[in-house]
Amino acid sequence: MPLLPPALDKLATLLSRLPGVGKRSATRYAFHILGQPEEFARSLASALEELVTHVRFCVDCHALTEHEQCDICRDLSRDRTLVCVVETASDLVAVEQTGAFCGLYHVLHGVLAPLKGIGPGQLRLANLEARLAAVGAREVILATSTDVEGEATALYLAKRLAPLPLTVSRIATGVPMGGELEYLDQNTLSRALSGRRAFEG
Amino acid sequence: MPLLPPALDKLATLLSRLPGVGKRSATRYAFHILGQPEEFARSLASALEELVTHVRFCVDCHALTEHEQCDICRDLSRDRTLVCVVETASDLVAVEQTGAFCGLYHVLHGVLAPLKGIGPGQLRLANLEARLAAVGAREVILATSTDVEGEATALYLAKRLAPLPLTVSRIATGVPMGGELEYLDQNTLSRALSGRRAFEG
Repeated sequence: MPLLPPALDKLATLLSRLPGVGKRSATRYAFHILGQPEEFARSLASALEELVTHVRFCVDCHALTEHEQCDICRDLSRDRTLVCVVETASDLVAVEQTGAFCGLYHVLHGVLAPLKGIGPGQLRLANLEARLAAVGAREVILATSTDVEGEATALYLAKRLAPLPLTVSRIATGVPMGGELEYLDQNTLSRALSGRRAFEG
Repeated sequence: MPLLPPALDKLATLLSRLPGVGKRSATRYAFHILGQPEEFARSLASALEELVTHVRFCVDCHALTEHEQCDICRDLSRDRTLVCVVETASDLVAVEQTGAFCGLYHVLHGVLAPLKGIGPGQLRLANLEARLAAVGAREVILATSTDVEGEATALYLAKRLAPLPLTVSRIATGVPMGGELEYLDQNTLSRALSGRRAFEG
């Protein structure tokens, strides 16, 4: 005899596929949803439907949007000479939240990972060169993460974009703000030393 | 300009209402769902609809079921002289998973908490006495939790059921199996001492 009603168990099984959610938490979520007014489950269901129906990728930069072109690409006040390449839509949000960047983006939706079978063909790269020419970009900032795959992707892009008449730069690596040297890994510290800059006091 | 497409933000806001899920995790879940084949979001949505459409409370014991009466109440092979009172449907599952109980249940769907305005009227108690008489119960096991509210609820029920011709018992409190005495709280240890039993070696 099943202990949970099948509908509850089915929801818990699906929820346990979310990142970092085990079957136990998922069951707890399902019980919680059941304990709320019916309205809550129905809004969740319709939000899920809306998500897959309305959200798509910007035809130009592949950021998430509900239109053909995203708000940033459409915004003519942004600096079109500067294009920041990021791995994911969440990375775009992280960069945008700093308020320190006013150019355009290009979202790869992944990084090169040959062992997982992800080559350049799996990334959203097809229109990159054409787009850089079209917007008149003068600098491309490679803002992929600083782990092995992110570094390899940056290296690949740097080589690929080298023939174009523009500057290809990489986000700085070094000691994070508030970081204490003694707790830092060797690699980061040695990068911070070799990447030192003249003091602009 | 909103950083996230409204549909994504709406889903994240709803997910952040799940217990222990903050806005950051919720946004991560929403991004994850968007990264899956559309099928996943649609199954989640339909599982939510099914949950609120099909799952209801057993008319007798108030456990969760997809029928009028739950599987346990319908199962005539269960010992109907023994009724275990639990706080929530998840507690029922926990007791049932021990395999050590073969009687019936009664789910309160809450505990007495005067400060939160939860009195006996808010618990699923209306049919309790009539039901105990109807099934011919000889013992009621109060298996509410051993925190202040659970204890108060057990005490209230013990008093309320006292006039009935049946035994009212409370689950044992003491040292959990595998527990080390030195790490145990004083209260549990003193309960374990006063509740000691003759050694049946």
